Amino acid sequence: MLRAVISGQRHCLLKSSNVVIHRTLATTSDKYPSPYFPDEPRQPQVHSAVPGPKSLSAMKHLDQYQDTRSVFFVADFEKSKGNYIVDVDGNTLLDVFAQIASIPVGYNNPALHSLMKNPAFQTALANRAALGVNPNKDWAHQIEETFMKVAPKGLDQVFTVMCGSCANENAFKTAFMYKAAKLRGDSSFTMEELNSCMNNQAPGSPDMAILSFSQAFHGRLFGSLTATASKAIHKIDIPAFDWPKAAFPKLKYPLSKNESYNRQVEQESLATVEAIIQQSKKPIAGLIVEPIQSEGGDNHASPDFFRKLQAICKAHDVLFIVDEVQTGVGGTGTFWAHESWDLPDSPDMVTFSKKFQAAGFFLNGRLRPAQPYRLYNTWMGDPVRAFQAAAIINEIESKNLLSNVKNVGAYVQDQLSHLKELENVRGQGLFIAFDMPTTAARDKFLVNMRQNGVNIGGCGDRTVRLRPMLTFQQQHADIMLNTMDAVLQQN
Amino acid sequence: MLRAVISGQRHCLLKSSNVVIHRTLATTSDKYPSPYFPDEPRQPQVHSAVPGPKSLSAMKHLDQYQDTRSVFFVADFEKSKGNYIVDVDGNTLLDVFAQIASIPVGYNNPALHSLMKNPAFQTALANRAALGVNPNKDWAHQIEETFMKVAPKGLDQVFTVMCGSCANENAFKTAFMYKAAKLRGDSSFTMEELNSCMNNQAPGSPDMAILSFSQAFHGRLFGSLTATASKAIHKIDIPAFDWPKAAFPKLKYPLSKNESYNRQVEQESLATVEAIIQQSKKPIAGLIVEPIQSEGGDNHASPDFFRKLQAICKAHDVLFIVDEVQTGVGGTGTFWAHESWDLPDSPDMVTFSKKFQAAGFFLNGRLRPAQPYRLYNTWMGDPVRAFQAAAIINEIESKNLLSNVKNVGAYVQDQLSHLKELENVRGQGLFIAFDMPTTAARDKFLVNMRQNGVNIGGCGDRTVRLRPMLTFQQQHADIMLNTMDAVLQQN
Repeated sequence: MLRAVISGQRHCLLKSSNVVIHRTLATTSDKYPSPYFPDEPRQPQVHSAVPGPKSLSAMKHLDQYQDTRSVFFVADFEKSKGNYIVDVDGNTLLDVFAQIASIPVGYNNPALHSLMKNPAFQTALANRAALGVNPNKDWAHQIEETFMKVAPKGLDQVFTVMCGSCANENAFKTAFMYKAAKLRGDSSFTMEELNSCMNNQAPGSPDMAILSFSQAFHGRLFGSLTATASKAIHKIDIPAFDWPKAAFPKLKYPLSKNESYNRQVEQESLATVEAIIQQSKKPIAGLIVEPIQSEGGDNHASPDFFRKLQAICKAHDVLFIVDEVQTGVGGTGTFWAHESWDLPDSPDMVTFSKKFQAAGFFLNGRLRPAQPYRLYNTWMGDPVRAFQAAAIINEIESKNLLSNVKNVGAYVQDQLSHLKELENVRGQGLFIAFDMPTTAARDKFLVNMRQNGVNIGGCGDRTVRLRPMLTFQQQHADIMLNTMDAVLQQN
Repeated sequence: MLRAVISGQRHCLLKSSNVVIHRTLATTSDKYPSPYFPDEPRQPQVHSAVPGPKSLSAMKHLDQYQDTRSVFFVADFEKSKGNYIVDVDGNTLLDVFAQIASIPVGYNNPALHSLMKNPAFQTALANRAALGVNPNKDWAHQIEETFMKVAPKGLDQVFTVMCGSCANENAFKTAFMYKAAKLRGDSSFTMEELNSCMNNQAPGSPDMAILSFSQAFHGRLFGSLTATASKAIHKIDIPAFDWPKAAFPKLKYPLSKNESYNRQVEQESLATVEAIIQQSKKPIAGLIVEPIQSEGGDNHASPDFFRKLQAICKAHDVLFIVDEVQTGVGGTGTFWAHESWDLPDSPDMVTFSKKFQAAGFFLNGRLRPAQPYRLYNTWMGDPVRAFQAAAIINEIESKNLLSNVKNVGAYVQDQLSHLKELENVRGQGLFIAFDMPTTAARDKFLVNMRQNGVNIGGCGDRTVRLRPMLTFQQQHADIMLNTMDAVLQQN
């Protein structure tokens, strides 16, 4: 029945099933702002199961070579447009998952397509540079026009890599090198250090740690996975360093009614952080934190928490690393989520990937290792993805997308707060989440939402996370919200 | 003086300085095969110091944001062509370093440029898929036409990632998951395992190891760096797992005169490997080895060594992982270097990156984890780079480049063996190296070669490594060899 709703008779059918209609989709353009993508679909169209028979067939084909148990459906990106993803069965879904929060400015954005006519982009694509050996003549300018344009204040350096896990691990390496230099007083290496590291032994391979939080997600390689604590299935059977975890505050919602409680749990978390640092037998070189724990359940904390966290790090000479792989590039309404904390100084390092297409981290020049070849690898990033990052920054600025994110985010949060079935509605900009009573209820909701034309994802144990693109407007929000109304009634 | 040689008066000047001329550059096309790039430069042209004033200025600019102490010179990739790289000072160098062995089929290869007109390529570039969630409809076909076309026999699966270090680390993870499942008898996880891994503690985070070799290079992230033992500066101050290293055989050259000695050192290495596995207190899940230790000094071993190494791994249920990040994709004269070993069965996993542009590893289906989301990340590779990999395979096949590599490689190795200044000339195809008496002599040689129009790199303590592209023909070889003659005489 709901499938028909999606196919154009929503208003009527929802009424007939006694759903309270919060929003009426406008049929004229007077209610909604003009669309960023005039030629994108007006609404979802679902003709088959999601995944449909063609998706299932393509998944079966693919499964010969790669595990497809995690696949939602098989996409037809050629036909996808703006906020809408089209699948191989011809279904059109409003996409608020966006390739795990990695599509910033819509499918087939013309600005990204027009890059392909840029000779410098073509050159970078056909001639992949080893940027530490033979950077292209454009590279310094590219850095200026991309990374430095949005660099957190005081972070005047950038190290680019290939993915978010690599970004975090290189930030960790930077922290360890910085800490080791401080501990030895910046003198040169001893022969014992030089020799012992070749056998993975101290003192050359020191027993130091990165402190992270419970429920954190920082990646899936050996160092980043050690700092990760999202789900056991991510970590089990993989050797890990003996690095500590502090409990991340678990806030109660609505915030306005739980101020005192929340202040207390944040204070407890901060006390744990300080105790771990003070009592650790091994040096803690850095602390890494997400502005919103984005895989571990969309767990938020207050700006005051983060300011105090930075102060603790400073007091104990622990580098304060902010992982903006998922929160960065506008989804929270500021370019970097940590901008809303009003920190007295920038974090020591800020890592990025996903929506930026380019991956890496910002750092202050004082963290550059004294010797060359220590932060180094073959490609050291990808100018192709940096060109895209520059185009994305330009789209965000020229279309004023951060305002859009703030306005539509506030609208969605307000509307969701009236849905009694949803627990713990929370968000920053369009980076919004809510909880369902159980994992099973959440999983069923996700499937039903997709089946009704909204591609959506979960995180944590029972959380639904919204990760729309920055081009998500009120018209999209109303479609999503109406679908939620209907699906929740149906559940 | 030699700079003028490069500018066109080579023959005359070399004679006048009493250099023995081994090769006379042909002025007509009858001596040399027809060039793969008819419009590439005929020879190097060096007008300035390398790096020249414009490179130095660009490096100074770049150094505001990134460490440039490792930079040779700043490239003008737009003007580079085929086997020749052009720098911002207008110098044209024959490139036998090729972005640290990462350019397979020449700068600005038309096959890579023509890809940009392919709508499917454009779509993949503008719409980056999270391949574990929404693979594009082409992805299974792309895998078939790319990775599976060159997959080592019996390795029917491929897991794609973003870089060589990521490839090796995901292979390690696969080995650990496989070993852990075997040790627990494939039963499901215990609560103790599930809980303990969240705090990085055993039994959930088990104390297991990957065995690698002295002088190995497998990457620079925390797991791959633990397996790496190339240089102390790569490893020092970075925490490492307590994983063992076996001594890699150090062969004497020429091989024909040192058969008995070399057999003995290989046997000693194999005995060490077996002893480490047998005596290890922790399970050894996998052994990783490069066909040629490419960063650690171009250290070779015999096919017999590798066959016996695989047999030892099989006997002790240790997965045999071959790291073909640098050796793969044709440089040794076979698509994968390990093809020359004539193994009874393929390795358990083969990792790749660099020349393939796409990164990842091949594995056998039996190694696929029993549960989903364990080998997983946001992008799971890059279809853009897979399109390029397919074009590269097509270039290799259609131009018969493996034959070229074998023929020119044999010629270069023979010619180098007559240069009395070079020690331990060794190679497989065009993957060739030799030693200089000291690190200082080697470094001076590299600088002088670049100054005389041949861009070349080192590895290990005193080794010169040749990493030309697969399009390196005899005419290029003669230019390189004549330049070596002259530089060696000058030294």
